[in-house]
Amino acid sequence: MVIIVKHRTGEAQVDNLVKWLEDKNLRVQKTVGEFQTILGLIGDTSKLDEDVIRSMGIVEDLRRIQKPYKNASRDFHPDDTIVDVNGVKVGGGNFAIIAGPCSVESEEQLSFTAEQVKEFGADMLRGGAFKPRTSPYSFQGMGEEGIQLLLKAKEVTGLPIVTEIMDPEHLPLFKNVDVIQVGARNMQNFELLKKLGKLNKPILLKRGFSSTIEEFLMSAEYIMAGGNGNVILCERGIRTFETYTRNTLDLLAVSVLKQLTHLPVIVDPSHATGIAQYVAPMSLASAAAGADGLIIEVHHDPAHALCDGPQSLTPLQFKELRGKVDKVLAAVK
Amino acid sequence: MVIIVKHRTGEAQVDNLVKWLEDKNLRVQKTVGEFQTILGLIGDTSKLDEDVIRSMGIVEDLRRIQKPYKNASRDFHPDDTIVDVNGVKVGGGNFAIIAGPCSVESEEQLSFTAEQVKEFGADMLRGGAFKPRTSPYSFQGMGEEGIQLLLKAKEVTGLPIVTEIMDPEHLPLFKNVDVIQVGARNMQNFELLKKLGKLNKPILLKRGFSSTIEEFLMSAEYIMAGGNGNVILCERGIRTFETYTRNTLDLLAVSVLKQLTHLPVIVDPSHATGIAQYVAPMSLASAAAGADGLIIEVHHDPAHALCDGPQSLTPLQFKELRGKVDKVLAAVK
Amino acid sequence: MVIIVKHRTGEAQVDNLVKWLEDKNLRVQKTVGEFQTILGLIGDTSKLDEDVIRSMGIVEDLRRIQKPYKNASRDFHPDDTIVDVNGVKVGGGNFAIIAGPCSVESEEQLSFTAEQVKEFGADMLRGGAFKPRTSPYSFQGMGEEGIQLLLKAKEVTGLPIVTEIMDPEHLPLFKNVDVIQVGARNMQNFELLKKLGKLNKPILLKRGFSSTIEEFLMSAEYIMAGGNGNVILCERGIRTFETYTRNTLDLLAVSVLKQLTHLPVIVDPSHATGIAQYVAPMSLASAAAGADGLIIEVHHDPAHALCDGPQSLTPLQFKELRGKVDKVLAAVK
Amino acid sequence: MVIIVKHRTGEAQVDNLVKWLEDKNLRVQKTVGEFQTILGLIGDTSKLDEDVIRSMGIVEDLRRIQKPYKNASRDFHPDDTIVDVNGVKVGGGNFAIIAGPCSVESEEQLSFTAEQVKEFGADMLRGGAFKPRTSPYSFQGMGEEGIQLLLKAKEVTGLPIVTEIMDPEHLPLFKNVDVIQVGARNMQNFELLKKLGKLNKPILLKRGFSSTIEEFLMSAEYIMAGGNGNVILCERGIRTFETYTRNTLDLLAVSVLKQLTHLPVIVDPSHATGIAQYVAPMSLASAAAGADGLIIEVHHDPAHALCDGPQSLTPLQFKELRGKVDKVLAAVK
Repeated sequence: MVIIVKHRTGEAQVDNLVKWLEDKNLRVQKTVGEFQTILGLIGDTSKLDEDVIRSMGIVEDLRRIQKPYKNASRDFHPDDTIVDVNGVKVGGGNFAIIAGPCSVESEEQLSFTAEQVKEFGADMLRGGAFKPRTSPYSFQGMGEEGIQLLLKAKEVTGLPIVTEIMDPEHLPLFKNVDVIQVGARNMQNFELLKKLGKLNKPILLKRGFSSTIEEFLMSAEYIMAGGNGNVILCERGIRTFETYTRNTLDLLAVSVLKQLTHLPVIVDPSHATGIAQYVAPMSLASAAAGADGLIIEVHHDPAHALCDGPQSLTPLQFKELRGKVDKVLAAVK
Repeated sequence: MVIIVKHRTGEAQVDNLVKWLEDKNLRVQKTVGEFQTILGLIGDTSKLDEDVIRSMGIVEDLRRIQKPYKNASRDFHPDDTIVDVNGVKVGGGNFAIIAGPCSVESEEQLSFTAEQVKEFGADMLRGGAFKPRTSPYSFQGMGEEGIQLLLKAKEVTGLPIVTEIMDPEHLPLFKNVDVIQVGARNMQNFELLKKLGKLNKPILLKRGFSSTIEEFLMSAEYIMAGGNGNVILCERGIRTFETYTRNTLDLLAVSVLKQLTHLPVIVDPSHATGIAQYVAPMSLASAAAGADGLIIEVHHDPAHALCDGPQSLTPLQFKELRGKVDKVLAAVK
Repeated sequence: MVIIVKHRTGEAQVDNLVKWLEDKNLRVQKTVGEFQTILGLIGDTSKLDEDVIRSMGIVEDLRRIQKPYKNASRDFHPDDTIVDVNGVKVGGGNFAIIAGPCSVESEEQLSFTAEQVKEFGADMLRGGAFKPRTSPYSFQGMGEEGIQLLLKAKEVTGLPIVTEIMDPEHLPLFKNVDVIQVGARNMQNFELLKKLGKLNKPILLKRGFSSTIEEFLMSAEYIMAGGNGNVILCERGIRTFETYTRNTLDLLAVSVLKQLTHLPVIVDPSHATGIAQYVAPMSLASAAAGADGLIIEVHHDPAHALCDGPQSLTPLQFKELRGKVDKVLAAVK
Repeated sequence: MVIIVKHRTGEAQVDNLVKWLEDKNLRVQKTVGEFQTILGLIGDTSKLDEDVIRSMGIVEDLRRIQKPYKNASRDFHPDDTIVDVNGVKVGGGNFAIIAGPCSVESEEQLSFTAEQVKEFGADMLRGGAFKPRTSPYSFQGMGEEGIQLLLKAKEVTGLPIVTEIMDPEHLPLFKNVDVIQVGARNMQNFELLKKLGKLNKPILLKRGFSSTIEEFLMSAEYIMAGGNGNVILCERGIRTFETYTRNTLDLLAVSVLKQLTHLPVIVDPSHATGIAQYVAPMSLASAAAGADGLIIEVHHDPAHALCDGPQSLTPLQFKELRGKVDKVLAAVK
């Protein structure tokens, strides 16, 4: 970290700051210039509170050289992390596709879709039991019953299941869920993240729709700092000025994340686009950009889905997509 | 609500949709045009799930005429709601200023600041006990102890206290807190909102930093739908491409909110700007724009605050600001 | 177009509006509902001024069914437009790569780079002679001399050349330029667009960094309305809250554009990312997403480029990329 | 300027860079740390091309201490610039209101509105003769005839006139125009700015709707670098994710600009909001935030304006607003 001290700061004040830093086990290199004094810090600055330093009257600015996330950073873990979900591997060259309906709606719907996506090449099954909805009057999900149906579908198909948590109080219900998903709106629900950090279970962390790449990694760091290193990151579109599509899919962030972190990064083209016809091209583009997987909404009858129908693929569309994705993966290998 | 049916949809399919709508106690006016068929819905559409309709293959688009929030809408409650906080009124012409430190740091810090802001004209005391921080390594707040110190300061000064909740599990600690604050990052933590909706206590709901005005009101609706109408809205800056300031303060949203809803709307210029010197001009602008109050960070020694120091006013700066705000309020009355 | 009339508007006023619309050769279908009156317009509404209608006191809202761009819309021209640049085809299944330095810097630099990119598979040569720079103190390009050097490189290599115009006054200098580029900052320089609409020469129109897809197409419409249908669209990244990369590459917009318009759509991954190492993954993703081409910065010595060096590929990196792009194109065919 | 050299760069390479910098008349302070080498530059760095330095392979990052705009910066001109428009002063405590129709539509419309706004307290008259419109099919303004009508209105009322330029070719028509306006879409039309820099006439420079504060000042610098210091800055709303209003008015930028530059800063609440009822509160808020003036659309019959009717005030509404603005100005003095 480099601290730039304000012009015309007295020497004694600078020395106080140097001492304060040294007390935190950091070595400090001081350079006195005509217009500014610069302090270069050597040592582990990841646990230093930037805000405290910025708040000091004599500090003009500071600049991190090291990343503020240590567990998530590739600097300290050059090799790709491979998250193992009941035998399905994600990351480190293992491309995984999670498919299934937005919401669990009924036993028939889920079991039919689960069998279809399994047949057509899905590696895991997704389905929402607790649904975050903008309106209190929209369908809120089947709750506990939805989880039971997912567990049943897992038993029948053998596919690991992925489903979203919205309240830490529900954690006991997720005991046999294979991957717990944290939705975009909860990416900075820090109390929830802390609790998930104490589990020994893969977490699928979705990027908040207005979160920077660094904030995203800091949220992964919350989970990892608690001891749970099984984090799968998911880009699902960001909010911009463009209104034609629901969100703007940030595939560049996928490339950037692959460089900054060793964690697997997957893409959710269904939520990002909100429109089924764009799911296929964005899935292919994700594969070409270096993503480690996809999470795709598939519904046996999108026109009657209780939520997010317009963005769901039919099982047959999913089958066709799976084939194309494999071709792109082979091309970019 | 107006539903536009896709070009070349068969008559039978349209009739099915009409029947489906009528089953929901809506009257439907059908107009068949050359290029499109339009259905006008008459009745209470606020509980209709837009997504379900959009997902129907034959629907081109729909447009709400009525607002999707009913409890929060001024259409149904033309008069301003006045939230009464232990005798301090907010809204309906009552301008209230909440002041205090970002974080509760110690008994000395809090009691000193509390007495100062009271003397200099604050109507309520703020202070964070649970702090949402981007980094797991930053100071996370004093927690329960912080709440105890706030309650003590309340006892001494008589000022009602406002503090943020981050986890529904902590609710018992907030029993004697006067106003429970929901931070920007939790604006769409729907499970938390539902629980707050069952309380009979004022809620200060901050706008998410990338939430639209409509999403903001829908979150207020979550609380109100549960039965708790004591919601104070707070604009605290939105995230844009501009990086010079921490956020972009959206004062236009304050004017828009005052028209759309009967709930009081206050402004947090401290978090929006992140820089103390802009707190005063933005406070005056808020008062001129029609806000119902302000929430301002005041610290006896900003240079040593454990969080958000650079944006805090000193007690004397606060005193000066209070005087100027009153002048602007008088000018725009 | 559907016009929604305000609640409680008098019948006579509505009839006036109907008459005004009929005078514009439109047929009007009126539906009187309990809460609103709706007017459905039948006929060519593309030349109707939306703002005039919105400004009428009795109009609640209007909604276009037809696109506001007629020449650019795929609705009226279902087949892909193929732009022919001196024998190099773009669009309709023809994928073209434009490569070359950001700025023309010297004869040696340009001729060397031109020969290299030709050898390694570029279809056209790019190079900036007039450079839009944020600071008046930055290098502004070689101007006329730069254009002469480009024409020389064209003569030697046979590659068509692409270069940017910044002032209509410079048009005579562009007589032998094959493709005139309009930069992002000039996408809504309407006077320039009108002048380019009168030429019979391909125009490469870059998306403004905060322009919506619809605004982008309206700017293409400005050129086409003048009679010049040879427009190539270029997505080059949009401005969002994310600051890690220079821009956010909006590949979803490429897919959307391919559906809305018949014009070819290419991608500029160099400007979008601003960082050379992300050019390759974003190029592959563009090819997978359905783009019709790429425009890529290549410099023989990026570390000493006078502008945009950090985002330039070396000729050898370009060669490798060309090969990979071809593989992805084959995979998604 | 501080340059941070990449970890593990060879000494000889660093020395080369130091020499290159010294050749540009800069003094360089080198500090060699364990993790990085830092170069502090002393001297005038405002004409240094940041991009060239960033492009050097050995440079990790650079950070400006001095502002990149020298003429526009308050650091070098602490006193407020007062722009004198034919006797009407703007800046330095002089608050000026520019009012008039969006477009000049006819002699009657303009002369009536001009006399009304003069009577009701406007200091200058605005009116568009050349109109930037998103669609080529929308009304494009009266052009030269519009300018003639403005000059006539100036003669009758004595009000200085403000009107927008869209093409440098039109400059001769602006000879007797008092203030030449550069619209948001042309803020980075650098060739136009350079030409305006050679005039001796006040320029009203509007902020691009997605331009940062620094880019805005750099565009002012383009004009000032040419020798024309009579620049009035205008905040007119920025583009964000919020769609309820046309733009988000960035009043915080006004406060920031007042600190960074000595140039006067005015606000355009009409374009920012797009809705007449929000013009008054945003005008009052602008005055409270420290703006030096307002530019407001006034139309004698907004419901029939050829452009931007919904955001125009009637003359009487303008009169009422003028009175309230004066009260706020008195309150914050």
